[in-house]
Amino acid sequence: MPTSKSLIPARVNPDLAKERRSPSFSVEEFQHWWYGGADKLKDKREIETYLYKDLRDGHLHDYLSHEDVYHLAVKDVTEAAVKLRKLQEIRNPGGNDIWPKLLYSYVSWAMMPANNPFATHITMFVDVLFNQGTPEQIEKFAKPAANCNIIGTYAQTELAHGTNVRGIETRADYDRKTDEFVLNTPNLQAYKWWPGGLGHTANHAMVVAQLYIDGEHHGIQMFIVQLRDLETHMPLPGVDIGEIGRKLGMAGVNQGFLGFKNVRIPRTNMLMRNAKVLPDGSFVASPVSRLNYMTMVYTRCLIVDISSTALLLAATIATRYSAVRRQSPINANEPEPQIIDHVTQQQKLFSEIANGIAYRLCVHYMWEMYDLTQKEIANGDYKRMADMHIISCGLKVLSSTDGSFGIERLRLACGGHGYLTSTNFSNIYGNIVASYTYEGENTVLLLQVGRYLVKTWLQLTQGKQMPPLAAYLAEMYGKREMTPWNDSLEYMVKLLQFTATNKTRVAFENLTKRVAEGQTQEEAANNTGIELTQAAELHARQFVASVFLDQITGIKSANRSKALNSVLENILELYLVQTVQRHMHDVLRFTAISDANLRSLQNRLELSLKKLRPDAVCICDGFDFHDLVLNSTLGCYDGNVYERLMEAARKSPLNQKPVPDSFEKILKPFLKSNL
Amino acid sequence: MPTSKSLIPARVNPDLAKERRSPSFSVEEFQHWWYGGADKLKDKREIETYLYKDLRDGHLHDYLSHEDVYHLAVKDVTEAAVKLRKLQEIRNPGGNDIWPKLLYSYVSWAMMPANNPFATHITMFVDVLFNQGTPEQIEKFAKPAANCNIIGTYAQTELAHGTNVRGIETRADYDRKTDEFVLNTPNLQAYKWWPGGLGHTANHAMVVAQLYIDGEHHGIQMFIVQLRDLETHMPLPGVDIGEIGRKLGMAGVNQGFLGFKNVRIPRTNMLMRNAKVLPDGSFVASPVSRLNYMTMVYTRCLIVDISSTALLLAATIATRYSAVRRQSPINANEPEPQIIDHVTQQQKLFSEIANGIAYRLCVHYMWEMYDLTQKEIANGDYKRMADMHIISCGLKVLSSTDGSFGIERLRLACGGHGYLTSTNFSNIYGNIVASYTYEGENTVLLLQVGRYLVKTWLQLTQGKQMPPLAAYLAEMYGKREMTPWNDSLEYMVKLLQFTATNKTRVAFENLTKRVAEGQTQEEAANNTGIELTQAAELHARQFVASVFLDQITGIKSANRSKALNSVLENILELYLVQTVQRHMHDVLRFTAISDANLRSLQNRLELSLKKLRPDAVCICDGFDFHDLVLNSTLGCYDGNVYERLMEAARKSPLNQKPVPDSFEKILKPFLKSNL
Repeated sequence: MPTSKSLIPARVNPDLAKERRSPSFSVEEFQHWWYGGADKLKDKREIETYLYKDLRDGHLHDYLSHEDVYHLAVKDVTEAAVKLRKLQEIRNPGGNDIWPKLLYSYVSWAMMPANNPFATHITMFVDVLFNQGTPEQIEKFAKPAANCNIIGTYAQTELAHGTNVRGIETRADYDRKTDEFVLNTPNLQAYKWWPGGLGHTANHAMVVAQLYIDGEHHGIQMFIVQLRDLETHMPLPGVDIGEIGRKLGMAGVNQGFLGFKNVRIPRTNMLMRNAKVLPDGSFVASPVSRLNYMTMVYTRCLIVDISSTALLLAATIATRYSAVRRQSPINANEPEPQIIDHVTQQQKLFSEIANGIAYRLCVHYMWEMYDLTQKEIANGDYKRMADMHIISCGLKVLSSTDGSFGIERLRLACGGHGYLTSTNFSNIYGNIVASYTYEGENTVLLLQVGRYLVKTWLQLTQGKQMPPLAAYLAEMYGKREMTPWNDSLEYMVKLLQFTATNKTRVAFENLTKRVAEGQTQEEAANNTGIELTQAAELHARQFVASVFLDQITGIKSANRSKALNSVLENILELYLVQTVQRHMHDVLRFTAISDANLRSLQNRLELSLKKLRPDAVCICDGFDFHDLVLNSTLGCYDGNVYERLMEAARKSPLNQKPVPDSFEKILKPFLKSNL
Repeated sequence: MPTSKSLIPARVNPDLAKERRSPSFSVEEFQHWWYGGADKLKDKREIETYLYKDLRDGHLHDYLSHEDVYHLAVKDVTEAAVKLRKLQEIRNPGGNDIWPKLLYSYVSWAMMPANNPFATHITMFVDVLFNQGTPEQIEKFAKPAANCNIIGTYAQTELAHGTNVRGIETRADYDRKTDEFVLNTPNLQAYKWWPGGLGHTANHAMVVAQLYIDGEHHGIQMFIVQLRDLETHMPLPGVDIGEIGRKLGMAGVNQGFLGFKNVRIPRTNMLMRNAKVLPDGSFVASPVSRLNYMTMVYTRCLIVDISSTALLLAATIATRYSAVRRQSPINANEPEPQIIDHVTQQQKLFSEIANGIAYRLCVHYMWEMYDLTQKEIANGDYKRMADMHIISCGLKVLSSTDGSFGIERLRLACGGHGYLTSTNFSNIYGNIVASYTYEGENTVLLLQVGRYLVKTWLQLTQGKQMPPLAAYLAEMYGKREMTPWNDSLEYMVKLLQFTATNKTRVAFENLTKRVAEGQTQEEAANNTGIELTQAAELHARQFVASVFLDQITGIKSANRSKALNSVLENILELYLVQTVQRHMHDVLRFTAISDANLRSLQNRLELSLKKLRPDAVCICDGFDFHDLVLNSTLGCYDGNVYERLMEAARKSPLNQKPVPDSFEKILKPFLKSNL
C-alpha cells in the first residue's frame, strides 16, 4: 500500500553520525581541495541548488516500459537544457561553462537519471560542425544546432563495422548533373548503428561515408544529412530509421539505426573545411597532412573524468551503507558490528576510494596537459601529441575497466540490497561499462599502446631520446636489478616502473623472435598480443602511480594542512601497496623481492586500512556528492537506508493494488486446476 | 517500421559453416560424453522439442513495464508448469525428474525468460515441508503445495538481518489460551525482505521467527503462515505485504516484503518434526543434536550447476559471434579477419570455455559425493559432511564469481553489440550474479573456509589425520621445496596444491602471531581476513584442478576416442596454465620457479590457444544448447547475427510508429523555443 507521508526520519542514522564526530582532518578543507578552492565549491553548490529544484523522483524510470522511459528522457533533457541555458545567462552570460558543458557532467545525472538522448548532439554533432564546417555551414547548421533548433547525431559505426573505420560501406556518390551527393546503404551490414538520439530524437545526422566521384573512391568524408521533416518529424523519403532496442544501460539515449536509399543532399552538405568537392566534380584533398587526433584524446579524457566520478559515487554509497549496516559478529556474544569493521570489507571499500582518487588526480593532470598540447599544436609543435594520445588510450582503458569493475565490486560489497535498482548501482554501472567498448574497445586500445611500447623500445636500443612519458624506460633500461628495497612511497613507484620496463622488454624480445622466425611484423604482434596488452597495462599503471605520488607528496602539498596531507598519504600508500600487489607476479619475476618484503607489504596494506577506517565516511563526505546525484537508497547523507528501501519499494506500481490484475485471469485458474 | 516476414535467411553464415567443416574430433561423441550417453542426449532433445512448441518471443519482457513483466512471468511459469507436469505423465508417470525438477533447470530458461516467481515455492517451501513437517502437516500443506493448489515461499532474511540468522527479529509468541502463535514484526528492520514470489504470487509462507513461550526465548523455529485469502487473494488482516521493487536481474521473480501485526496461526502450524511446542506450552527440544546442513550443500551444488551452465551459454554466444564478426586487420592490406583469429580474443573465449567445463565436471563429482554422503548420514556416519560442506562453500564462491565475471568478460568481448539486451548477456548475468550474494555472501563463505583451513592446519601440526579433501595439505606439509619443474599436467596441479598449502601456513602463522599478541581468536581472524580468503580461494582452486585432471586423464578417458581425449586435454592444459598464471604471485613466492619456466608457461598458453582455435566453434556445438535457451541475437546456431540484431530492433515498440508520441508535446515545442 502506498503511504501518504514520507517514511524517512529527519535524523541522521546514529552510526553514521558517530563516524562524523572526529575525523583526523577537516572535511571542509578536503572539499575545498577537491573542488579547487572554496569559491568553486560554493559555485557548485549554488548551481546544484538552482538545478535540482522540483525534480521528479529519480527512480521513476525503473518501473516504466521502454517506450515510456524514452518519453521521460526527452522530457528530462529538454527541461534540463532550459534550466542550464537560463542559469548560464544568470551566472555568466555568453559563457559555455554551464550550458552546454554541464549537460554532460555528472551534475546533470540528477536531472536525467535515464541518461541523455542529446549527448551525441552536444558532444559530437555541434562540435564537429564548428570545427570542420565551412563558415557557411557554421551559419546554416552549427548555430541552429547549438541553439537546439535542430538536433543532430554522429553516424559513423555500422552494424558490421566498428573500430576499423576504413571498413565502413555507406557511400556518397557525387551527381554532377544536380550538384548533389546520393547516399546509399549497400547492404544490411552497412546500416548505421549506435548513434545516440538517432532513433526518434535527431532530425539531422553527420554521416561518415565513402566518397565516390565518377566511380572513383576518395576516402572517408563527412556529410550533413537531414533525416526527418522539421515540422512533422516524419522520416524523409529513402531514410530508413529506428532505434536499436533496449540495452544494459543508457535507457533513454535512443541509439538508432539508419539506412539510405538514394537520399540526395546538396554538394555543399559535405564538410569542406579541409577536403573539398568542387561543382565540376574535382576533388581537392585536405591540405592538413598530419592527423590531429586531439578530439579523440579529449573524448578519452572525458571518459576518465566520468568513470572516476562514477567510481567515487559508488564508493560513497557503499561506504555510508557499510557504516550503517550491522552484520556478522566478530566476537561471539558481542553485538553485530558495523560491516565497515570487517577487514575484508575495508579492503573493498578503501581500495576503490583510492582508485577513484588516483584517477581523479590524473584527470586534472590530463586536462592541464591537454591545454598545453593544444597550445603547442596551434604553434605548429606536434611533439607532445603522440605521448598524449598513448597515455589517454591507456588511461581510458584503466579507468573504464577499474571504474566498471570497481562499481560492481562495491555493489556486491553491499550484499543483497545492492541488487535493487533503487540503490542506483546498476544504473551507474550500466552507464559506465559502456565506455569499456566505445571510443576504442579496451583490448584494441591496449594493443595500440603495446605496439607503441615495443616501437619505443626499439628506439631505445638505438639510443634515441624518449618522449617525456616514456622517460622512465630510458632510466630503467639496462638495469639488471632494482636498488635494494626500502619502505618509501617513491620506491613502490620505481618498482612499478622497473616492472613495466621489463614487461616491455620481454614483449619486445618475443615479438622480435617471432619476426626472426619469419612472421610478418603484424602476425608477430598478434601472436605476442597477450604480453603486449600486459605491458601496456603496466605502462599506464606506473603513470597513474607517478601522478598520484606527485600530486600528494609534491610541491602542491605545501598548500594543505598537515592533517589533510596525512590522510591523503594514507590513501596514496594503500593505492601503491595494492597496485604493487596486483602486479606482484611480475614484480617477483623481475626483482629480488624477499618473503620478508612481501610480509611487510601485507602489513602495510592492513595498517593502511586500519588508519583509514576512522576517516572513511568523512573522506566520502569530502567528495560532496549531492543526494540527488547519488540517487541511492543506500547512499544518502543521512544514512536512513532501511526507511528509504521500504519507501522505494512502496512506490512500485505493483504495490498500488492489493491483488495484481493477472490473479483472476491467470493465477487463480491455475491454482484451482489441480495440476 | 515492422517487417511482415522474417529477415533471417535459411542458410548458415558461411564463416560459421566453415568452422564446422573439419573439427579434430566428433561433435556427436562430445555431445554423448557431455550428456552422459546417447540415450540421455536423445531424451534431452525430445523434452526440448515438446516443451518449446509455440513459445512466445524470448525478448518480449525487454520492452515491458515492470508490472507487465510480472504478469508475463506468471503466465510463463503457469504454462511451463502445466507442460512439465504433462510431460512427466507421458514420459515417466509418478517420477519427479521432469516436474518439478526441470522447472529450475536451464531447460526452463527458454520458457521463462523473465525468470520464475515459483522458484522459492518449489525449491524451498515444498521441500522444507516434506523434510521437516509432521505427517499431518505433509497431508495438509505439503501435498497441496506440491500440487500448486497453494503457493508458498520461504521467509527468513529480514531488511536488516541476513547472513547472521540468529539476528532475526520477527517473533512468534505462544498464546496458551487459544492454542495459537501470535506473529509480530517489532520494527521496520525486522520486515521479511527478499523471499521469491512473496510480493503478489504466494498465498503462504514458511516464516522463520524467534519463538517465545511465556516470554522465554526458545530459539529460531519455522511457522507455516497463510498470507492471502485463497479465493480473493486479498492479504489477510495484520499481514503487510508487497514487492521490494525492481532489481538488476530476476525481473519476474516478484521478491517481496512482509510484516506481521498480531497475526494468529494454530499451534500446529509450527514445523514439529523435530522441536515441538505442546498444548500446555511446554517446549520439547529437537532430539537431533547434530546439525544437518546437507540442504545448504544441495543448494550450493545447484548454484555451481547453474553458474557453470550459464558461463558456457555465454561462451557459446561469444564464440559463435567471434567466428562471424570480422574486424581489425591483422596484416595490413588483407581483409578483416574473423575476430576469433585475434590471439587476445582467443584468450578471452577459450579461457571461459575451459572454466565452464572445469566447473561442470566438478558438478558431476559433487552430485556423486552428495549422494554418497547422504547414504552415509542415513547410516549415522557423518564423517564426510564437514568436508562436503567446506568444498561446497568454496565451489559456490568460485563458480558464482568466475561465472559472473566470465559472462561479463564474454559480453565485453563482443564489443558494442554485447550491450544490447537482445544478445541475452545482461539477462544471463543479472540472474547469475545474484548468487554471488545469496546462499552465503561470497566473502563470508570464503572466511568460513579460511577459518576451517587454519583449524585444519592446527590439527596437522598436532599430527591428526586429514579429511579426504584436505589430504593434500598433509602430503605437502613440511615440504620446503616443490620437486623440480616438469612439463606434465600433474605437476601444475601439485604446484597449485603446494601453493595452497603454503598460503594456509602463512595465514595460520599470522593469525597465531596475533593471538600471541593478545587478540582474541575472533579478532585475530578478522585481522587476518584478507589472507584467510586468499587461502580459501586457493583451496577451492586446487580442488577444481584436481577434479578436472582426474576426469580427463583418469580412468574415464578409456571410454573416449583418442581424438576426443586430445581436444579435452588441450582444454585442460589451457585451464591449468591459466590457473597457475592467475596465482603466479603466490607460486613465485613459495617455489623456485625460474624465468625460463615462466616463458615456457606463456608458450604453452599461446600454444593451447592455437590448438583450440580450429575446434572452438565445434566444442561449443558439443554443449548442444538449444537456440531458444541461448535466446541470443549473437549466439544462434546459424550465425545470422546481423539479420537477428535488426529483426530484434524492428520489434521495439518505439519502432512501431514513425514519430514518437512525445514529439508534438515535448520535443517540437522545445525545438521551436529558440533555447
